Amino acid sequence: MFFASDNGATVAPEIMAAIMAANAAPSLSYGDDAATAALTATIRAVFEAPDAAVFLVSTGTAANALALAILAPSWSTIFCHRHAHIAEDECNAPEFFTGGAKLTLVDGAHGRIAPQALATAIAGAGGSVHGAQRGALSLSTVTEAGSVYSTADLAALATLARDHGLPVHLDGARLANALATTGASPANMTWRAGVDILSLGGTKNGLMAGEAVVIFDPARAWEFQLRRKRAGHLGSKLRYMAAQFEAWFADDLWLRLAGAANAKAARLAAGLTDQGATLLHPVEANMIFARLPASAHSRATGAGAVYYRMDAQLCRLVTGWDTPEADIDALLAAFLGPAARGV
Amino acid sequence: MFFASDNGATVAPEIMAAIMAANAAPSLSYGDDAATAALTATIRAVFEAPDAAVFLVSTGTAANALALAILAPSWSTIFCHRHAHIAEDECNAPEFFTGGAKLTLVDGAHGRIAPQALATAIAGAGGSVHGAQRGALSLSTVTEAGSVYSTADLAALATLARDHGLPVHLDGARLANALATTGASPANMTWRAGVDILSLGGTKNGLMAGEAVVIFDPARAWEFQLRRKRAGHLGSKLRYMAAQFEAWFADDLWLRLAGAANAKAARLAAGLTDQGATLLHPVEANMIFARLPASAHSRATGAGAVYYRMDAQLCRLVTGWDTPEADIDALLAAFLGPAARGV
Amino acid sequence: MFFASDNGATVAPEIMAAIMAANAAPSLSYGDDAATAALTATIRAVFEAPDAAVFLVSTGTAANALALAILAPSWSTIFCHRHAHIAEDECNAPEFFTGGAKLTLVDGAHGRIAPQALATAIAGAGGSVHGAQRGALSLSTVTEAGSVYSTADLAALATLARDHGLPVHLDGARLANALATTGASPANMTWRAGVDILSLGGTKNGLMAGEAVVIFDPARAWEFQLRRKRAGHLGSKLRYMAAQFEAWFADDLWLRLAGAANAKAARLAAGLTDQGATLLHPVEANMIFARLPASAHSRATGAGAVYYRMDAQLCRLVTGWDTPEADIDALLAAFLGPAARGV
Amino acid sequence: MFFASDNGATVAPEIMAAIMAANAAPSLSYGDDAATAALTATIRAVFEAPDAAVFLVSTGTAANALALAILAPSWSTIFCHRHAHIAEDECNAPEFFTGGAKLTLVDGAHGRIAPQALATAIAGAGGSVHGAQRGALSLSTVTEAGSVYSTADLAALATLARDHGLPVHLDGARLANALATTGASPANMTWRAGVDILSLGGTKNGLMAGEAVVIFDPARAWEFQLRRKRAGHLGSKLRYMAAQFEAWFADDLWLRLAGAANAKAARLAAGLTDQGATLLHPVEANMIFARLPASAHSRATGAGAVYYRMDAQLCRLVTGWDTPEADIDALLAAFLGPAARGV
Repeated sequence: MFFASDNGATVAPEIMAAIMAANAAPSLSYGDDAATAALTATIRAVFEAPDAAVFLVSTGTAANALALAILAPSWSTIFCHRHAHIAEDECNAPEFFTGGAKLTLVDGAHGRIAPQALATAIAGAGGSVHGAQRGALSLSTVTEAGSVYSTADLAALATLARDHGLPVHLDGARLANALATTGASPANMTWRAGVDILSLGGTKNGLMAGEAVVIFDPARAWEFQLRRKRAGHLGSKLRYMAAQFEAWFADDLWLRLAGAANAKAARLAAGLTDQGATLLHPVEANMIFARLPASAHSRATGAGAVYYRMDAQLCRLVTGWDTPEADIDALLAAFLGPAARGV
Repeated sequence: MFFASDNGATVAPEIMAAIMAANAAPSLSYGDDAATAALTATIRAVFEAPDAAVFLVSTGTAANALALAILAPSWSTIFCHRHAHIAEDECNAPEFFTGGAKLTLVDGAHGRIAPQALATAIAGAGGSVHGAQRGALSLSTVTEAGSVYSTADLAALATLARDHGLPVHLDGARLANALATTGASPANMTWRAGVDILSLGGTKNGLMAGEAVVIFDPARAWEFQLRRKRAGHLGSKLRYMAAQFEAWFADDLWLRLAGAANAKAARLAAGLTDQGATLLHPVEANMIFARLPASAHSRATGAGAVYYRMDAQLCRLVTGWDTPEADIDALLAAFLGPAARGV
Repeated sequence: MFFASDNGATVAPEIMAAIMAANAAPSLSYGDDAATAALTATIRAVFEAPDAAVFLVSTGTAANALALAILAPSWSTIFCHRHAHIAEDECNAPEFFTGGAKLTLVDGAHGRIAPQALATAIAGAGGSVHGAQRGALSLSTVTEAGSVYSTADLAALATLARDHGLPVHLDGARLANALATTGASPANMTWRAGVDILSLGGTKNGLMAGEAVVIFDPARAWEFQLRRKRAGHLGSKLRYMAAQFEAWFADDLWLRLAGAANAKAARLAAGLTDQGATLLHPVEANMIFARLPASAHSRATGAGAVYYRMDAQLCRLVTGWDTPEADIDALLAAFLGPAARGV
Repeated sequence: MFFASDNGATVAPEIMAAIMAANAAPSLSYGDDAATAALTATIRAVFEAPDAAVFLVSTGTAANALALAILAPSWSTIFCHRHAHIAEDECNAPEFFTGGAKLTLVDGAHGRIAPQALATAIAGAGGSVHGAQRGALSLSTVTEAGSVYSTADLAALATLARDHGLPVHLDGARLANALATTGASPANMTWRAGVDILSLGGTKNGLMAGEAVVIFDPARAWEFQLRRKRAGHLGSKLRYMAAQFEAWFADDLWLRLAGAANAKAARLAAGLTDQGATLLHPVEANMIFARLPASAHSRATGAGAVYYRMDAQLCRLVTGWDTPEADIDALLAAFLGPAARGV
């Protein structure tokens, strides 16, 4: 019963098959290969962005920090949600890659930035030479709270930033889950909404390892390539990563895997609600934050369930494309306990 | 006929099998998994270093730059060969990761540092607050010229550094090839010779992607982990990389693959010598630097050979574990040309 | 009528005389001179810290950022007040000098950090490799709100930090004003209270230019010297700065100048209170934050008063050692206006 | 007998008088004052550069490193002479301020870069993403060897750089001495020769402390201001530094002081030559590198002479605007010794 994280999930069989198939012959390295070129064409088509530049890296932190580094200068501040992954879970990578930019933490319910809070934060930055200048806006969907932005809400925040001359980064570590939830098109949820650079995550959604940085303004591409190399993030055998992504986009596999993970979270959330558990945030993707009795946690752990606990009652449960429905039912049963089940 | 680089080679079948086997079930991520723990035990045994810390990253540049960052402070200089990979092929990654340390370029024939040149360079650094301080020594074997250090020569350079209080890094992107050549034990070529931190490369020798940083002084381990995370080099699904390494060490596969690549280079070098080609450096591993007539290059390229050319005559030829002997013979035949072959 | 800032004040005549006197003969540079050595002895005596290391720099931002850089590693976070000078007025200098450390902004009334807020912030940092680690605590007295810590309150915050293994920095850009207010001894307000490194400001209190970094743990001295040089903050003709400080400490001039500035602020604050102006913070040093009618500001500006206005009503008024009492009375009269004065 | 360095010299009386005069009244700080504005106008006139931006900092290292940081990106390399001050005497400040750019050391006799060596170095940089990119050229006149470039030679090197798209920085820590030697106009030796940014040194030539960065392309001015503030190099009481420079330019005082220092070096060099001492470099400014018998050094040191010795015989002798001719004669006499003088 594994609910610790979607980055602990297995690799989808279609992806594994693609890795095997990529191993037929030697090839030029560092992305100078046919598979990487083909993937760029595929992503341009999927995102309806014929000029987009596409670069692969091995982690989401690298994708985010490299993307922010070409948007926000060292003397600026990056506006993001108070609990954004770049703020809480990347050990100062954005500060390292930008050469010392700040993060200005913006509030908002359920992991989403509140437009008024963003407007206030932007208004308070820049101006004189003494303070941090306005750098960039970084959004995330799916958010760290498991919520998702509507295309309209995302566009409203991006527009607010752009009205102040700020470029916009989107942390899409779980973009596929957000697209599966909203049904929005990749283009509408990104560049048409005002996003300049996208971190497109594959690792949490069926890949072995792979994140794609999609730069909608190709003028920034060469600087990105230099920063990627300088950071040790230019892989040599990139064709194996490109092959994973190619299979991921084929027949909308990426959306099917994400949709499956979301459906499993919905099933689990429904069960928890039936049990009277408190859900802290709306379950809009594949993450659930729930408050349960300590006894319920003891039973679940005893039954072999693996997931994160913030305190005696609060926990995070994440489903993957491969989470067995039987495990969901078993976890719910364990939470409930034999007595409550009239056993 | 692929002789461009060993990082363009295919993945060895044993490694591919291990990747498949690692996909049985979900697992904790970020290295908190059984496979990563097992690999640490394996590497400690292989290197006879029961206290060594082991961390995986996805590129050699990351391994080198992160290793150097915990050895050399921002205000110091790192002594390395004038043509070291860290000096010429990492786009300032060592400078980035150390926060601005210099590289002091030291001369020496065939890619090996000359002891006297190193002594002079060290003597010229440090002292007053005005100049760069003495930071670390970075050695490479196999060198960028395709040569290999004897254990004694490596130890002599490391001792010289340590006598001046300098820690020692070894770039072992092709360490397996060097061990296959010298027959030295992993321990004798590293910590027993005075190496503090090793970049152990797998990608150029049969892995899909994987470099291991072996830190012989575990006191430096926590800082390394923080630097790795901050640089976006802490992979989430590390168990797939750990599995590759585990299979690589099994039954000395790493040494067998490297030995095969070396043998193919020897066969190619012999053929070139027979043809009267000039070899710039002794061929001690799997790289050949040769001078051939421009007409020979034209014929080889025309025949479909892929390799790097520095100028009209000079080229670099690299063999991999999987280079077909038929390709070697075909390349030699192409270089020679029909007339010369009496056809 | 100059109330813009105490760093716009003139240089005290005793200081000017010392500068002249320092010009008698050439001297070794970079602090290798008798005046700098003598100053170190003087500061050690004044602070009752016989082992302290003392280094001079030309700005408060340099003093703070260099001090923090030897306390807080790149992957850590520095705890400071939400409105600390290092957070709002140094254009990311702490982030630059530390190589990318974060600042965690802590709340508290009137510019003072609330102990419970600090405890909560510290508890929320560090732990796993994913988040910023605990770096250092940076306090300020006089605070940016013009308030002053009691020795007990300062020591309580420092103790809280040290109990969690955090070193403590004190931004003493206006320490002399704080000492003049509290009557505390330099030692009691710094190292005896748990401060590891002090930024001691002279420029705002009668010097032409001069900030002293006092490092109570001399083990950190050499790294500081290298960081100072690397940052271009090792002045060559330091003896002229040392001479200023020497005269500043003679006969407690530093405390007399600060006391004079404080007394002038008190006189101005009393007058404003009589006029019914709202003071946002207790006036405990030489800064006043007051809310006045827009009409009052118009009259004052018309009368030639120079000071900062945050909005239509809110302003900051700063007095210096040299602020004429006549200017204070004239400013008060201008605020009040002829009608109100029954003219 | 002080010959250690011109940055140990005293402050010229005209400069001291200007400092006193600047102390009449309080003033806005951070350069928002009349004196700083007036200095900008003066420097624009002196350099015939009506659009130039001018910024003051307190050290030459700060001027150089900040200037290079707006010219050379983190992933580039800066071409400079092997013995340039930025290479040997700034403790990695250029690397720190640029965020990790390299320095490519170029050879040339007597401290001057050899054009062919520069051409070769530039040709060897950039191209693929793997190596450092071409960043900037940094020249110095007076050089570290005490030589001076002719306007034509300086322009030739700058043109070579600009032909490859490289901006040009000039370290003019002793520019006044170079102008006094060559008689060239400030404009001809800087922007008309192809210099983009100038570090104009005052501290070594009669000021108490002051370096001016002159940016001939004002488009770079705002970034420079942010970098200056972020590095703690925006002084608050800048008017005292501006006043020094204003007096320095008045009636060509800067050139007269430099001419005096040069003349004293010429007198000393002539005496040394008469004694048969070997001069390592042509004496074209105020620095002499001479080889003398160890016994001569013993006598000079015994007589109270202060100067740098590289080894038993080699020394550096620097004259200042204030070096007494009697000291020159006394030093020469001491070197010679009584016997040799027929005493």
